[in-house]
Amino acid sequence: MKNLTKEILTVIKKRPANSHKGNYGRVVTVGGTQQYGGAILMSTSAAVHAGAGLVTCATAPENLTALHSLVPEAMFVDFTDEKTVNSVLLGANAIVVGPGLGTDKTSLSIVKNVFANVKPEQYLIIDGSAITLLSQENSLQEALPNAHIIFTPHEMEWQRLSGIKIAKQTEENNRQIQEKLNATVVLKKHHTEIYAPGAETVHLPIGGPYMSTGGMGDTLTGIIAGFMGQFANQDPQKALAAALYTHSAIADELAENSYVVLPTDIIGQLQEFMKKQVR
Amino acid sequence: MKNLTKEILTVIKKRPANSHKGNYGRVVTVGGTQQYGGAILMSTSAAVHAGAGLVTCATAPENLTALHSLVPEAMFVDFTDEKTVNSVLLGANAIVVGPGLGTDKTSLSIVKNVFANVKPEQYLIIDGSAITLLSQENSLQEALPNAHIIFTPHEMEWQRLSGIKIAKQTEENNRQIQEKLNATVVLKKHHTEIYAPGAETVHLPIGGPYMSTGGMGDTLTGIIAGFMGQFANQDPQKALAAALYTHSAIADELAENSYVVLPTDIIGQLQEFMKKQVR
Amino acid sequence: MKNLTKEILTVIKKRPANSHKGNYGRVVTVGGTQQYGGAILMSTSAAVHAGAGLVTCATAPENLTALHSLVPEAMFVDFTDEKTVNSVLLGANAIVVGPGLGTDKTSLSIVKNVFANVKPEQYLIIDGSAITLLSQENSLQEALPNAHIIFTPHEMEWQRLSGIKIAKQTEENNRQIQEKLNATVVLKKHHTEIYAPGAETVHLPIGGPYMSTGGMGDTLTGIIAGFMGQFANQDPQKALAAALYTHSAIADELAENSYVVLPTDIIGQLQEFMKKQVR
Amino acid sequence: MKNLTKEILTVIKKRPANSHKGNYGRVVTVGGTQQYGGAILMSTSAAVHAGAGLVTCATAPENLTALHSLVPEAMFVDFTDEKTVNSVLLGANAIVVGPGLGTDKTSLSIVKNVFANVKPEQYLIIDGSAITLLSQENSLQEALPNAHIIFTPHEMEWQRLSGIKIAKQTEENNRQIQEKLNATVVLKKHHTEIYAPGAETVHLPIGGPYMSTGGMGDTLTGIIAGFMGQFANQDPQKALAAALYTHSAIADELAENSYVVLPTDIIGQLQEFMKKQVR
Repeated sequence: MKNLTKEILTVIKKRPANSHKGNYGRVVTVGGTQQYGGAILMSTSAAVHAGAGLVTCATAPENLTALHSLVPEAMFVDFTDEKTVNSVLLGANAIVVGPGLGTDKTSLSIVKNVFANVKPEQYLIIDGSAITLLSQENSLQEALPNAHIIFTPHEMEWQRLSGIKIAKQTEENNRQIQEKLNATVVLKKHHTEIYAPGAETVHLPIGGPYMSTGGMGDTLTGIIAGFMGQFANQDPQKALAAALYTHSAIADELAENSYVVLPTDIIGQLQEFMKKQVR
Repeated sequence: MKNLTKEILTVIKKRPANSHKGNYGRVVTVGGTQQYGGAILMSTSAAVHAGAGLVTCATAPENLTALHSLVPEAMFVDFTDEKTVNSVLLGANAIVVGPGLGTDKTSLSIVKNVFANVKPEQYLIIDGSAITLLSQENSLQEALPNAHIIFTPHEMEWQRLSGIKIAKQTEENNRQIQEKLNATVVLKKHHTEIYAPGAETVHLPIGGPYMSTGGMGDTLTGIIAGFMGQFANQDPQKALAAALYTHSAIADELAENSYVVLPTDIIGQLQEFMKKQVR
Repeated sequence: MKNLTKEILTVIKKRPANSHKGNYGRVVTVGGTQQYGGAILMSTSAAVHAGAGLVTCATAPENLTALHSLVPEAMFVDFTDEKTVNSVLLGANAIVVGPGLGTDKTSLSIVKNVFANVKPEQYLIIDGSAITLLSQENSLQEALPNAHIIFTPHEMEWQRLSGIKIAKQTEENNRQIQEKLNATVVLKKHHTEIYAPGAETVHLPIGGPYMSTGGMGDTLTGIIAGFMGQFANQDPQKALAAALYTHSAIADELAENSYVVLPTDIIGQLQEFMKKQVR
Repeated sequence: MKNLTKEILTVIKKRPANSHKGNYGRVVTVGGTQQYGGAILMSTSAAVHAGAGLVTCATAPENLTALHSLVPEAMFVDFTDEKTVNSVLLGANAIVVGPGLGTDKTSLSIVKNVFANVKPEQYLIIDGSAITLLSQENSLQEALPNAHIIFTPHEMEWQRLSGIKIAKQTEENNRQIQEKLNATVVLKKHHTEIYAPGAETVHLPIGGPYMSTGGMGDTLTGIIAGFMGQFANQDPQKALAAALYTHSAIADELAENSYVVLPTDIIGQLQEFMKKQVR
C-alpha cells in the first residue's frame, strides 16, 4: 500500500489562458430528500468552489431555495423530473449520486434512472444512500452502468456492499471485491484507502478526528466531481487521489484553529488552497 | 455554593485519532413553530458547531429551508411526523425539547411523544415552552421519563415549574424542588446556578448583560446537547458545567468588541474557543 | 437649528450587570409585502443588532424563511393575523410600521389595526408606505393613536403628509405642521432634521451620498426602535437623535473603504460601533 | 481595435454631496426560472453592490426567498405579473433581460412584454436566454425596441444571433452585424470585445481563466446595469467599458489568492474596488 504525499497536488494545474467554462467540467449532483437536503447542498457547493465549470443539483423541490441561498452559482433540477434530469446528465462529465438521497421507492427509481443514462466516458460517484440501495436491490446491481464508477463508502456501507465485515476489511479482501465490481473504491475511514482498477492501493495518511461530523463525506463527493471534471484528462486516478488529499489537507489546516472542522468550512477554503498549489 | 472556574474547560478533550462521527454524539433538537422558528435553528446550529457528530432538527416544515440555509450540516424532520421523529430519537445521545415550541395542543402532543420515547441512558434537555407546558399540564408531569433530565429555566419559568416565587428562589428552596424532580436544574439568571442530584450547587461567575438578547438560552441548549454527546461519558455534571462556562466565556470575549453579543455570534466562535482549550 | 455632535452618543450607556432582555426593549416591526419584503427584514435585523432585547417581525408569510435565514434571533408573526399581532403589540416598547408595507387595502387595514392597539407609553415609528397611506386616507389620520409618534419621511413623503412642497420645506413651515401632528418628525434628506415637540430643531451634519441606496431608511427605523427600547427612559429625544447619529456615523466610517454603503453593511457594524461609545 | 486600460475607471466619480437614491439609477433585472434562478439573483446582487439606487428583480416566485436572503436591498416582482412588471419598468434607467430566463413560451412572452415597454432613453441589456430566443424567433426580432440596446453574448450565442460561425467572428464581420442591429455588442470571450455604434472597437486585455465558472456573465449584466444607471449620463460607451473593466479587474485581484473566482466573490468586492478609484 502506497502513502499519498502532497506531491499528488501537482495534479492541480494552472489554467490555460484561453479557455472557457466548458473546459472545466459539467457536474451533476443527485440527492437530497426533504430530510437530508443539506447533504446534496454541500456536495454541490463543494463542486462549485472546487472549480467545476457548470454545476447542476438534482434534488427535492423543497431544497431549491436553500440551494440558491447557499450557492447561487449552481442550477436546480427537480430530481423526479426525469426528462430534465436526463437532459443535464447528457452533457455531464462527472455525476454524483447518493448524498442524502434516502432509500425509499422514489430514491430507488432516481438511482435507476441515473444508471440508465450514464455513458461510458462519464465519471459516476456513487455515495451514501445509493450504496445502501445497491446493497439491497439486486435489480440495481444488474443495472450498474458501464462508466468510470467511483464508490465512496464508509466502512459500514462497504460491509453492506462488499459483504466483508469491518474487522475483515483487509487490503486483500477489499481488493477482491473491488475487482469484481470493476470500479474504483474509496473506503472512507481513519486513513482512507483507494482501490482502483489495475493500480496499487493508495492510503491517505492525513486528516483527523476533527473531521468526524455529518456532511463531511457529502462534501468530499463534490470535490471529487469537481476534480474529475477538471483534471481527469491527465490521469483519472491521480485526479481522484488529489481530491481526497485536498479535502483532508484543508481540514488539517483548519484544525489548527478549530476543535471541529465543518464541511462548509472546508468548502470555504477550496479556492485558496488550490491556488497555493499552482503558485 | 461553588464557583465555576475556567478549570472546568479541561472537560474538553483532544479527540483520539481513530474515531468517527458516532463517537461524538447524535443530537436531536425538537422545537420551533412558525412563529418561533429561529429558536430551534439556533439550538441546532450551536450543537453542530460545538462538535456533535450528527444533528437532526425536528421542527415545523416552515423552518426547513432556513435550517438548510443556516446550517446544511443538520438534518430535518417534521416534528409532527411521530414515526420519523421516533426513529431519530432512538439513536440519540442527547435530546433538546422546547426552544420555540409554543404551548398549544400540537406542542403538547410533541412533548408527550418525546417523553414517551426517551430512554434512561439519554440526556434530555427541557427548555422554554416545554417547561411552561410542564408547569401547566399534570398529565405531562406524570409522563416525565426516566432519563438524565436537565431543565434550563430562567427565573420566571422556574417559578412556574417549582412554585417558588423569584424573590424566594434561594439555594435551599431551589434544591428542595430539584430533589423532588430528581433532575438537574440550570437556573438561568445573572450568574446562573446548577443544581444537580447529589452534587454541590454550582454558580457561574462569568457572563454579562450583553447576553440579554432573544435566543441566548436557545443557543445554550444546543451547546449543552453537543457537550453531553461528546463529554458526558467522563463526568456528566462536569460536561454540563463546561457547556455553560463555554457559552458565557465566549460572550465575555466577544463583548470586548460588541455592545450586545448575539447568539449567532457565539455559535460562530465555538470551534475556535474549544480548540484553544486543548492546545 | 442645532447641530448634532458625537457628544449625543453618550446616550449609549454601559449596561448594568444585573439585567435581563426585558430591560432592553421589546420591538415589533410591521411591514413587508411579497414585493417589498426586504425592507422589513432590514428594519428587523437592525433592531436586533442595535441591542433590542426581543424583536418580532409582523410581515407577509412569504418573508418567513428569509427572516429566519437572515436573523434567526427575531420572531415571526403573519401581519394579517390580527389576534397574534395584537398580542405581541401589547408587550412592545417600540413599534415600527410601514417599511415595505405597500399601500393596498390589506396594508391599510394592517396600519389601522396597529393604530387601534398602540398605547400612550409606546413609541410608534411611522415610515414609508404607512406615511403615504396616512397622506391619502382621512380615516387613518383620525385614527392616529395617542402615543409617542415618530414620523420618518423623506422629502417627498413629507410633502404628501404635510402638504408643504419640497422647495418650501423650511424650518418654520415644517415646525408648524409638526406641531399640528403633535409628533416628532425626522425629515430624511441631505443632512436630516429632527422636529420634536417642545425642543429645538436638530440637524444631522454627518452622512453622505454613499448612503443613497434602497433600504437605508428601513434600516434606520430598526435602529431607532432598538434605541427607544433601550435608551428612551433617560431622554427620548436624545435616544432618537443618537439613533440617527449612529446610523450615519457608521456609514461615514464604512465609506472610507466602500463606494456605496449598503444597509446590511451598517447593520453588521452596529454592535462594534456601539461598544466603542462605552469604553 | 483599441485596448482598454485602467484609465477607463475614471468614469467612476465621487458622488456629489447633495444627492439621493434617484440619482443613482433604477435597475430592473428580468430572468430566473425555477431551474436557473441563481443567474438573476447574481445579476441583481451585482447591481445593488455596484451602487444602483434602487433595484427590482422580476423573476419566478420560487426565487423570492433566496433573493431576500441574499440581497434584502432588492425588491421583488413576479415576472409573469405584467402589470407590476410594467410599472417598475416605467421608472427604470437600466433593464437587464435574460439571465436564467429559459427559452420556453413563458420566457418568450416575458421578453416580448419587456420589449413592448422599453422606452428610447432606457438602457436595455439583453443576455443569455433572451439572446437565444431572439435568434430563434422572428417575431421577437421585429419587436426589438427603440432603446439603448446592449447585447452581451458569448461566442456561441453571438453565432446564433449574428449567423457568424465562431471561427469567422472577425472584427469586420462582427461589426457588420452590429451595425445592422444598431446596438452595442459585448462579445464575451477570452479578451472580450465591445462593438458600439460609431465608436472604435474596444478590446479588454484583462481577466483570465479563473473566471470560467457558471454565473460570471450574469454577474456582469448587473454591474453593467448599475454603471449605466450611475455613469451613463457622462458617456454611455465609457460607462459600459468601465463596467467590463471593473468586472475583470476584480477577478484578476481575487485570482491572486483563488484558483477559481466565483461570481459572488466579485460581487463582494465591488464596493471596495469602486472606492479605490475615487480616492
